[in-house]
Amino acid sequence: MKPKEIQREIIRFTKGEKVYEKDTIVTEFPVTVKINGEEFVTMVCTPEHIEDMVVGYLASEGVIKRYEDIKDIWIQEQEGYVHVHTHKLNPYYQNFQNKRYITSCCGASRQGFVFVNDALTAKKMKDIHVRMTPDDCFQLMNDLQSSAHTFQKTGGVHNAALCDLNGVILSRMDIGRHNALDKIYGFCLRNGISIKGKVIVFSGRISSEILLKVAKIGCEMVLSKSAPTALALELAEGLGITTVGFIRNDSFNIYTIPERVINVSGKSE
Amino acid sequence: MKPKEIQREIIRFTKGEKVYEKDTIVTEFPVTVKINGEEFVTMVCTPEHIEDMVVGYLASEGVIKRYEDIKDIWIQEQEGYVHVHTHKLNPYYQNFQNKRYITSCCGASRQGFVFVNDALTAKKMKDIHVRMTPDDCFQLMNDLQSSAHTFQKTGGVHNAALCDLNGVILSRMDIGRHNALDKIYGFCLRNGISIKGKVIVFSGRISSEILLKVAKIGCEMVLSKSAPTALALELAEGLGITTVGFIRNDSFNIYTIPERVINVSGKSE
Repeated sequence: MKPKEIQREIIRFTKGEKVYEKDTIVTEFPVTVKINGEEFVTMVCTPEHIEDMVVGYLASEGVIKRYEDIKDIWIQEQEGYVHVHTHKLNPYYQNFQNKRYITSCCGASRQGFVFVNDALTAKKMKDIHVRMTPDDCFQLMNDLQSSAHTFQKTGGVHNAALCDLNGVILSRMDIGRHNALDKIYGFCLRNGISIKGKVIVFSGRISSEILLKVAKIGCEMVLSKSAPTALALELAEGLGITTVGFIRNDSFNIYTIPERVINVSGKSE
Repeated sequence: MKPKEIQREIIRFTKGEKVYEKDTIVTEFPVTVKINGEEFVTMVCTPEHIEDMVVGYLASEGVIKRYEDIKDIWIQEQEGYVHVHTHKLNPYYQNFQNKRYITSCCGASRQGFVFVNDALTAKKMKDIHVRMTPDDCFQLMNDLQSSAHTFQKTGGVHNAALCDLNGVILSRMDIGRHNALDKIYGFCLRNGISIKGKVIVFSGRISSEILLKVAKIGCEMVLSKSAPTALALELAEGLGITTVGFIRNDSFNIYTIPERVINVSGKSE
């Protein structure tokens, strides 16, 4: 697989002087997904955990309904292809091909919103399986950040982790916000890992699409060090997802379904 | 037009206590662009300068070649449509409809890379019309940040500005990274503003797509407070664009074509 970082000569200007030095730069790798021989989509990503990403992407877009719908998946690295052969495709698959949706995180097209209604029906979180104290929230954000080596070196990636109260279960980084979540989702699908009782901790902004992705994965709660958007919060209310944002130092904001954050000021909610 | 921010009740946890307060949250507004009556694309954006954004987007994707190709453009706000009628469409227009490209900034589809070769041919910056000192770089980043009111309130948006040595000419913010640049590009096209001698100052990471967008707009130089990717730097070398990143406090990095940054350590390059 291609490297996820490279070294490059740069000129660093600091305190009035130039220094010629080597810097670590994050890479972007374009891969084109072919489904049963037909080009489906080209994604640009950090070149690791590609199969997980593609599986997570296809599941979250509804192209497959379960991992077992895939017969095989393999990467043709030099050419940048991921070949997916399926037993079964979602009958709506054809529609994806003809519809483009440009989302807010970078003004670019994903099909996420097509399934808002499905998501609202299918994944509404009625029950509360996760309860976290403020200290849990701070601790998990710390865990995410200390596990984020590439970010520390390059500053160019997003980090996401699947966590429970004991800490980080799985942490993934990518130059693409969604890719990091797709890599987590795909890993869980391929390895039969249950999502129940787990939360997503994310380095980036909670846009409507990130929120929908969290819902599709099936998590009840998302923690972020950034801000949410209004549309994401509307969806979170509808889907029963707890959103906690701006986790920094000794404070954070609870935007929706606050019942999952307990023991605040010594009082249980 | 819809509001670009809303007020919302949140629970702020700080120093061990809960505070119920109002917070300002940035909105996302989905607009569907119809070209000559046919749905082309749906974009999610911050609801302001929508016409500029659509014009800039269509031009940078190559759907139109010049602003004059558009006969008229109007917004049907309640329904979330932007209607574009054209005199002339790029003959390759049909291809856009059938090709999806998912880019790194959020793993989402844009058609940008289809035109890499065009861009390399068409917009290669052979000459140097812009020269900046380190103080100019610091000053322009400061100017961008102090003009970014919504960011200061909500933390949820990207900011971009078209600048020259005298400061910010035009500053735009959006929840979508690309949208902010499209809004600038569209404004320039609609108002006949020349790009020569101007630079883009941007709050976000310089991905390959952002770099291509800068090239399509026709700027020689991009300044950012974030990191670039390796692919963006490769393109920048090819296109002759100066990239300056990590502008913070008293330092920054020059990644490509350093000749446009002058008077470093009192020496002219």
